[in-house]
Amino acid sequence: MGTEGGLKRGFWSIGQLDREVAESLLERARRHAKGPRRSDVLQGVEIAALFFETSTRTRVSFEVAATRLGATMLHFDSKSSSLSKGESLHDTVETIASFGVDGMVVRSSAAGAPQLMADWTGLKVVNAGDGAHQHPSQALLDLYTLSERRGSPEALSGLRVGIVGDIAHSRVARSLMEGLDLFGAEVTLVGPATLMPPVGFRPATRVTSDFDECLGDLDVVYLLRLQQERIGQGLIPSFEEYVARYSLTRERYRRLRSGVVIMHPGPVYPGMEVDSAVIAAESSLVRSQTRNGVFVRMAILEAVFGDGVLA
Amino acid sequence: MGTEGGLKRGFWSIGQLDREVAESLLERARRHAKGPRRSDVLQGVEIAALFFETSTRTRVSFEVAATRLGATMLHFDSKSSSLSKGESLHDTVETIASFGVDGMVVRSSAAGAPQLMADWTGLKVVNAGDGAHQHPSQALLDLYTLSERRGSPEALSGLRVGIVGDIAHSRVARSLMEGLDLFGAEVTLVGPATLMPPVGFRPATRVTSDFDECLGDLDVVYLLRLQQERIGQGLIPSFEEYVARYSLTRERYRRLRSGVVIMHPGPVYPGMEVDSAVIAAESSLVRSQTRNGVFVRMAILEAVFGDGVLA
Amino acid sequence: MGTEGGLKRGFWSIGQLDREVAESLLERARRHAKGPRRSDVLQGVEIAALFFETSTRTRVSFEVAATRLGATMLHFDSKSSSLSKGESLHDTVETIASFGVDGMVVRSSAAGAPQLMADWTGLKVVNAGDGAHQHPSQALLDLYTLSERRGSPEALSGLRVGIVGDIAHSRVARSLMEGLDLFGAEVTLVGPATLMPPVGFRPATRVTSDFDECLGDLDVVYLLRLQQERIGQGLIPSFEEYVARYSLTRERYRRLRSGVVIMHPGPVYPGMEVDSAVIAAESSLVRSQTRNGVFVRMAILEAVFGDGVLA
Repeated sequence: MGTEGGLKRGFWSIGQLDREVAESLLERARRHAKGPRRSDVLQGVEIAALFFETSTRTRVSFEVAATRLGATMLHFDSKSSSLSKGESLHDTVETIASFGVDGMVVRSSAAGAPQLMADWTGLKVVNAGDGAHQHPSQALLDLYTLSERRGSPEALSGLRVGIVGDIAHSRVARSLMEGLDLFGAEVTLVGPATLMPPVGFRPATRVTSDFDECLGDLDVVYLLRLQQERIGQGLIPSFEEYVARYSLTRERYRRLRSGVVIMHPGPVYPGMEVDSAVIAAESSLVRSQTRNGVFVRMAILEAVFGDGVLA
Repeated sequence: MGTEGGLKRGFWSIGQLDREVAESLLERARRHAKGPRRSDVLQGVEIAALFFETSTRTRVSFEVAATRLGATMLHFDSKSSSLSKGESLHDTVETIASFGVDGMVVRSSAAGAPQLMADWTGLKVVNAGDGAHQHPSQALLDLYTLSERRGSPEALSGLRVGIVGDIAHSRVARSLMEGLDLFGAEVTLVGPATLMPPVGFRPATRVTSDFDECLGDLDVVYLLRLQQERIGQGLIPSFEEYVARYSLTRERYRRLRSGVVIMHPGPVYPGMEVDSAVIAAESSLVRSQTRNGVFVRMAILEAVFGDGVLA
Repeated sequence: MGTEGGLKRGFWSIGQLDREVAESLLERARRHAKGPRRSDVLQGVEIAALFFETSTRTRVSFEVAATRLGATMLHFDSKSSSLSKGESLHDTVETIASFGVDGMVVRSSAAGAPQLMADWTGLKVVNAGDGAHQHPSQALLDLYTLSERRGSPEALSGLRVGIVGDIAHSRVARSLMEGLDLFGAEVTLVGPATLMPPVGFRPATRVTSDFDECLGDLDVVYLLRLQQERIGQGLIPSFEEYVARYSLTRERYRRLRSGVVIMHPGPVYPGMEVDSAVIAAESSLVRSQTRNGVFVRMAILEAVFGDGVLA
């Protein structure tokens, strides 16, 4: 097992992990999945939840995880609050630090904000998504879900994963690619050229704008959420065009290899990235992803805020 | 005592109760009213609160009840969340089930949603109001409040209860009528014909559009909240017309029998359904209804989520 | 030590305190600052949080304080709730009292509301700011912060404190002046005549509209927040005019005495009342104010809701 000591200041990027530490976190999550629902390993720990962007799935997942470990979560509802209204991010975060909490879980539209916040305050900061930069807890829960399906983290080696959609704006894709790389999986990025990452982006094994052409080669189809604003921004011509070329329709689904699995970070808006029957099919791991999110976030909070070392 | 076993999947309708089970719930509530404020009978139980419609009274009442039993309540604020924005109800509920909670308390504008949610997920679901269908915890707290006033549930037999106002759109009225029927009370529905239930609705003893004519016959006047939208919908001609014919004014109050009690599910907007002096009078049970709401909801949560059987 | 018995019904005004009781509260706060973060002195106590005006700092500060004492805080989000929409304040508060809570922490735009609420319900009420009337927990945390800096409450005697800005509309100024008066500090009110309190307001040692003239005489510069609406109301000619005459710019900062301290109740919008470099300087006590707010509010909640007497 690797040392999780590098996470004692917080967890803001998959780049903080080597394979050993990633495996250690997955093993922690596995124990939470098998173990009792509640413990008191973080009894007395106070964590501020700072969500500058709307979220339900991730916010609740972290809250459930914290509560089950005995920690107290304090909510700073940034929408209806005087925080961040004219106040600088620096002031907002220093104010929260002044309350004497142990750390924060932060979602922000500003790439790099979580690490900055940790630097400013000396508090532990867990990244719950920062701009188009990173969403490391999502990537870890995806890795966990794939490991569970394949039997072990080792079985991710050589796995052919297609990430489909708006790669350019996706923190999910960015973190997941780095995570899959740690375990030796092979990533294919699929999407229109306008939604592909810029030159210099961490290279994938393969980049293509032809979903149909690579359908039969994939073990995993990971669909990203397409935000409607991309149409208005001129990045895709129309909803219909996107569906025609990149949606996982029933027809495309039938052409996938047997044993393939479908993943999506949620929320899923059926009919857009994926057909509703496909996302409800047995090969869809969407419910597993949500369920595992709690276990993986327990592992992350324990590694960041706990004293114990995984034996 | 009847068996509450039929509530182990949830509580979505008064129709699930026979008289024995209803009495068992009222007796549980009575014990909570007399007993210590806090216990730990639901220690470790996790309940998701899903309010798709605005509510303070009912939401807080359930939260207080859950907290006093030692349960943990998780909030899914459906207004500011990504849940239910484009996502189907089915997906939203499956996501919540994936977090591994034990059940949900649900308010929804969709009649029948709570039972559907229980069917979809296998989780226990408590109905906190669904469309114009049912509001069973409200009916039970009304029955509790009347029983307390009359001395016992048996004393509800033959009680003459007038339910006044917008019966057609009222889940409160629908649940209450069924509840009163279990105990042999006699219901009179009072209101304009446009706000009366359709043919085939569970028959009341009596239906009238003349409040003044039946005033002197009632033991209980139960006023429903009138929603302003009914005017725009052409269902009542004007605010003034409604007040003139159906508001419990001071003048009408003076013509009520001695010993009559006034009830209202709240929130009360004085001057509309009822005069402010009347709702503040000693014969008004509005405060008792709110207070008893907590005890009755403790009883419901205990029956649904607890292991114990009422001895 | 004075007796805190006068606080058993609640704490709505600095006027409830004599010097001995104020010192007793500061001593309680000091013990919380030095002691363990958590205790269970308010275990089982239920406090409703009623914020009719937006607040993050004060609301979270009270929530952290209550949680660390073992109390349960119930949130009545007055913005998105049916409470107070057409309902009278009296009804709203009676409803909350009906839930059986032990007391409330209230922020309201109505001066005097907290005391009224205590009278109506018999519940303990803590004022978290009422209109332009009082903000007593803020004044106490300011006194605590100054005492800490000066070494003791006694050292506040003779301290020259300039309160700068919109005195007329400031509950912070009103409470602070009364608090400083208890300890023999000398207050100078600084601001345009249009923002000075009306005749009959508790007299300060000195009132001036010339900030520059008194700069060199002050030991403490306490800057109030200027609300933008004051410009539209014709009370100040323009933002630029206000900054030119009353903002604590770098230039004015350099002319202050050595050892001076800068205070502000927050949130600070740099560039308006104060330059961003000044508010970040070592002489600024803004972070200490926030930090001490939790300790002082623990002391207040303990005095109001606790059984114990400070030995």
